[in-house]
Amino acid sequence: MQECYTQLLAEGYLTSQVGSATRVATGAYQMPSVPVARPGRPRLIADFLWGVPDLASFPRSDWVWATREACAHVASAELGYSDPRGNPAFREVLSAYLRRVRAAAAAAERIVICTGYAQGLGVVVRALAQLGVRRVAFEDPGYGEADTSESMKVTRAAGVQLAHVPVDELGLDVAALDASGARAVVVTPAHQSPTGVVLAAERRHALVEWANRNDAFIIEDDYDSEFRYDREPVGLLQGLAPDRVFAIGTVSKSLAPAIRLGWVLVPPAHVGAVAEEKHMSDRGSSGVDQLAVAALLESGRYDRHLRRMRAMYAGRRGVLIDALARHAPDVRLTGLAAGFHAVAHLPDAADERAVVAAARQRSVGLYGMSLYRADGAVTPPQLVIGFGCVGERAIESGIRAIADLLR
Amino acid sequence: MQECYTQLLAEGYLTSQVGSATRVATGAYQMPSVPVARPGRPRLIADFLWGVPDLASFPRSDWVWATREACAHVASAELGYSDPRGNPAFREVLSAYLRRVRAAAAAAERIVICTGYAQGLGVVVRALAQLGVRRVAFEDPGYGEADTSESMKVTRAAGVQLAHVPVDELGLDVAALDASGARAVVVTPAHQSPTGVVLAAERRHALVEWANRNDAFIIEDDYDSEFRYDREPVGLLQGLAPDRVFAIGTVSKSLAPAIRLGWVLVPPAHVGAVAEEKHMSDRGSSGVDQLAVAALLESGRYDRHLRRMRAMYAGRRGVLIDALARHAPDVRLTGLAAGFHAVAHLPDAADERAVVAAARQRSVGLYGMSLYRADGAVTPPQLVIGFGCVGERAIESGIRAIADLLR
Repeated sequence: MQECYTQLLAEGYLTSQVGSATRVATGAYQMPSVPVARPGRPRLIADFLWGVPDLASFPRSDWVWATREACAHVASAELGYSDPRGNPAFREVLSAYLRRVRAAAAAAERIVICTGYAQGLGVVVRALAQLGVRRVAFEDPGYGEADTSESMKVTRAAGVQLAHVPVDELGLDVAALDASGARAVVVTPAHQSPTGVVLAAERRHALVEWANRNDAFIIEDDYDSEFRYDREPVGLLQGLAPDRVFAIGTVSKSLAPAIRLGWVLVPPAHVGAVAEEKHMSDRGSSGVDQLAVAALLESGRYDRHLRRMRAMYAGRRGVLIDALARHAPDVRLTGLAAGFHAVAHLPDAADERAVVAAARQRSVGLYGMSLYRADGAVTPPQLVIGFGCVGERAIESGIRAIADLLR
Repeated sequence: MQECYTQLLAEGYLTSQVGSATRVATGAYQMPSVPVARPGRPRLIADFLWGVPDLASFPRSDWVWATREACAHVASAELGYSDPRGNPAFREVLSAYLRRVRAAAAAAERIVICTGYAQGLGVVVRALAQLGVRRVAFEDPGYGEADTSESMKVTRAAGVQLAHVPVDELGLDVAALDASGARAVVVTPAHQSPTGVVLAAERRHALVEWANRNDAFIIEDDYDSEFRYDREPVGLLQGLAPDRVFAIGTVSKSLAPAIRLGWVLVPPAHVGAVAEEKHMSDRGSSGVDQLAVAALLESGRYDRHLRRMRAMYAGRRGVLIDALARHAPDVRLTGLAAGFHAVAHLPDAADERAVVAAARQRSVGLYGMSLYRADGAVTPPQLVIGFGCVGERAIESGIRAIADLLR
């Protein structure tokens, strides 16, 4: 996910310069190795970083309980190297969950467990490259510039060309995709990353039709669909076209990024290729952690945690809407249907970068949309405002502190 | 590790045919997803599979305890995406441990945490390829044929050529390495995989001298050095030449393969490149698991577990030596200094494959050295005999059941 990249940038682990590739920050290697004091993250009134869940709410005791369950019940043989697709019991539980909650066409034998979204994308893209896919399209706005996007670097490293396809208020422009010559596309249908647009029904169907017509593939990044507010959850696109869609999900938003587990729902014909890429990559993800997540799913603790988090994010979302309405009533907020970020539309004349820099001077962390545009354009001026990892009071104080900048 | 591959072959997840690449077994995708009944592993009197520790001895309660410690003390910020090198606190504890136990030139800032050996090798080889390394040498016997070795496939996927360098009774033939034109070599100095030879002191020095003279690199696979019997542990080669050696270690043999954690000690000049490859690969390994291993190391529970296991493996090793001495006294056993496998040298006229097949008929799992030779040669006939995951009684019964085949 782009947001991971944003966080690493924010924390000083990566450096990004206009016109050059992102690098791991050299200075980062000199830092003292003390766990608690994170470098490069000055104390802010509010940090509207997006893509990070509320880390303080990680269900620590649930995780310990689940690990105990896993260790109590794991068969010794399961502690060895595993099926390249991942632990069979976890895949069984997960497939039932995804059928029920995400309307997925999921079956245990067609799931490949991975470490997270980044690895999932990597193994899928490499498998597609072997199938002869030569160009992969990305949403724009999306991962940003090709030189700074880890996802695009991974894609290019697989020997694949990139295409950028615009996103409008209905989501991905499928006609533009068709014209791009790409034979695969990475999409975020439930809550476009980062614009927050929900892919419209007619676009969903057009996208599937595009894939069928061109023998093409859809890589669905289902990154924050657990959290929806105004309406019923939108099911996975994968459920409409399981032969064409690789759907990737993780626990990075539902539990925490530090629990490195994700999954890919793979079209039946390509399970072997994806499993082999995963096997080549690292010989499988932690068996104990897989069984721990299975225990959380089966016991209902996972759903209970999600309900708790949904209420927390809904509260923060409400405070954000309210604070902007009171302090900067001209700023339009979109992309609020799901997840824990939204887009603030600044007046046309606003200078996005200047707003971000001035807010930082006032100890408020803001992130401009230009970071996520393929050409880095600063117009129209917009901010991607995360409310996942910032408390209600901080949201109110932060917006109040910078409200005049947004006018 | 080759042995992982061997186990997957044995368990039916991979298929291997002479002259063709290893593939994930298609049939494996049809298997019922029941966790306990592992497919393709018939009940054997004894399975002398190697490279797998005693899975039944995985310290389950220690792991639950360590996870609880990790969850109790982890800072919320550490539950987000982490430093691309891994959790700083874990690297600090690990570096102290490796300095003490493995005579490593280890410092936290030069460690990159990875998922296991396979991923460690992958990130190092890709970083070396970017440095301009065009050929990497492997020990022979070692990973076997290039088409069936996952490690060699990963290396070739990085755009690098392979070379095979013979191993004799002193370890890797450094003169042959020099002649190979390789600018990097993967070695197992503490207990050659699979011959069990310990790299002789003069060869260690010759190898470092080779690296210095050729601006070349050594990738040290420190896969089973925790378990030594007759003599003092051999320190890491990395301690002699920290600017030239990438040393890879894991908990796969000390705890279990299902805990997917390893580390690379990286020459200072290349930390950024390796960290970036790791970041591209999967955005880091589990932060909670890293802190759990840190708790095991700091509390002394890790050492206590290793002492217990060393005693167990020493007992099994003794039973194996004894059983062969009694039932097949002409079979010479070498490579016993460390780890939990050894090499049985069959009479020159023996047909290695026939012995393996006949033993399987008698429900005894044997693995021939030809699997690990680059050209697949069946002479001299040898068996790699694992005693890590087979009990003392099974060793005695197994050897007795096949003793006549070994004569």
